Amino acid sequence: MTDLAQRMADAADGIEATLARLLPVSPGYDAPLWEAMRYASLGGGKRMRAFLVMEGAALFSVAEGCALRAAAAIEMVHAYSLVHDDLPAMDDADLRRGKPACHKAYGEAMAILAGDGLLTHAFTVLADPATHGDPAVRVELVATLAAAAGPSGMVGGQVLDLAPERAEYDIGAITRLQRLKTGEMIIASAVSGAILGKAPLQARQALHAYAQELGLAFQIADDLLDVEGDAAEVGKDLRRDEALGKATFVSILGVERARDQARRLAAQASQHLEMFGERANPLRQLATYVVERRK
Amino acid sequence: MTDLAQRMADAADGIEATLARLLPVSPGYDAPLWEAMRYASLGGGKRMRAFLVMEGAALFSVAEGCALRAAAAIEMVHAYSLVHDDLPAMDDADLRRGKPACHKAYGEAMAILAGDGLLTHAFTVLADPATHGDPAVRVELVATLAAAAGPSGMVGGQVLDLAPERAEYDIGAITRLQRLKTGEMIIASAVSGAILGKAPLQARQALHAYAQELGLAFQIADDLLDVEGDAAEVGKDLRRDEALGKATFVSILGVERARDQARRLAAQASQHLEMFGERANPLRQLATYVVERRK
Repeated sequence: MTDLAQRMADAADGIEATLARLLPVSPGYDAPLWEAMRYASLGGGKRMRAFLVMEGAALFSVAEGCALRAAAAIEMVHAYSLVHDDLPAMDDADLRRGKPACHKAYGEAMAILAGDGLLTHAFTVLADPATHGDPAVRVELVATLAAAAGPSGMVGGQVLDLAPERAEYDIGAITRLQRLKTGEMIIASAVSGAILGKAPLQARQALHAYAQELGLAFQIADDLLDVEGDAAEVGKDLRRDEALGKATFVSILGVERARDQARRLAAQASQHLEMFGERANPLRQLATYVVERRK
Repeated sequence: MTDLAQRMADAADGIEATLARLLPVSPGYDAPLWEAMRYASLGGGKRMRAFLVMEGAALFSVAEGCALRAAAAIEMVHAYSLVHDDLPAMDDADLRRGKPACHKAYGEAMAILAGDGLLTHAFTVLADPATHGDPAVRVELVATLAAAAGPSGMVGGQVLDLAPERAEYDIGAITRLQRLKTGEMIIASAVSGAILGKAPLQARQALHAYAQELGLAFQIADDLLDVEGDAAEVGKDLRRDEALGKATFVSILGVERARDQARRLAAQASQHLEMFGERANPLRQLATYVVERRK
């Protein structure tokens, strides 16, 4: 296992334990809700957003317990977005993280509510003094996550993805869609580490710039995987964009140019980290990983 | 028009203007999202939750602009809950506030996203310095709203309402369902006024106790309206609980005992307001209004 793989696995273990604690099993009538919330958020994914929070926070020597809570909140919001995106009225996807989508396992009503519950609970977690002793830090985490996830961020991106004009998007429209749908949350993840560390503006801007290019590289790699990947390995339905006639980075640029572009962006992303020296090596390795990954 | 009716109408006008400003019309691809969010939250409802924020805040001389923003955030969350509750997979309701439900007007996917957008945007509004200059106040508003709306509050209440055991709930289970589904948000509304005013603990507890009994009285009156009301006047589908075989306060207690109970609770609610003197008269009048209203 590479250093990065080990570090990502350790972070994922920490996130898993934190999520399990923040989403306790309920013995009451509402047990299915908490089960569905756990089903949707535990045991899955690369935890890239959580890793960005953790590594961003580590640059400023933030206590690990604080970073884990902020990271768990962001993973809750990410999980909610997958649950709602997979609904029959949206992308109608059956498979997610290698198992049945939440609505397949718990029914549509419970999936909608589990998503709503995860989204709302994330703000409960961030607003809790256990996440940071300074209320100004906590409310800035809330503001950052809400902006990234809301109508001017992720929700807006999903609307662009479902728009009737979607099939004819050019590279500018695709880039805008990606920035909203996945980019803003990836930026918010890295920046949340800096917020927790009360980092100076320059450091925060550097992480912002890094995450912005990383997010675009990540999405291009995702489009490549959708064309070239193995569904069993990737753990979700593939080849859907093509079947739905959706323009993607790959359908517009072609496989080779898309891969070149992703690698160039990853290299540019790392250049923003110079001021952090060797401590930012895991973030540099992550940039390489996101474009070379097989799942 | 009574004093209370005038005061509620004035508050509703202020909320309407605030919501319209906080949910601007978008000229871009995401225009349908903002339209659906506006459709779901503008021009409707009694704005009782907003009125509770405003009147709670007025007891502590909070600036009206701050109270309006906090009230608008709570109304956004209330509107989102109605949009998601009305979805085909949930209550499958066609009529809301006298017009087609959001998914009837904009389709199911957009209704899910409009709900998600309203919920998330509410936290953006609360976390913004324009809502209050003190970050400790803002983050407490966030924590209060998230707890009331989340899995241990409103979302949990909706799960209890959809549970297979729902038909056989006794009065204890119905009371618990009501407290989660509508009660916690009504309490959060009144308490948010006190949070904005940095009110002493005793005052906050008094508003909490008032709102708790008010909320229960409100729900019993709602069940009475469901049996006795006129759908055109009330503005939503009625007689659904009976058709679905759902136990309610009225089906268990009967009409007369339910009405007595609602009036008793309203009177008790007002008794908690003694420490505020005449300034709390609008809240006392509201308690009478919620049990005598025809819509």
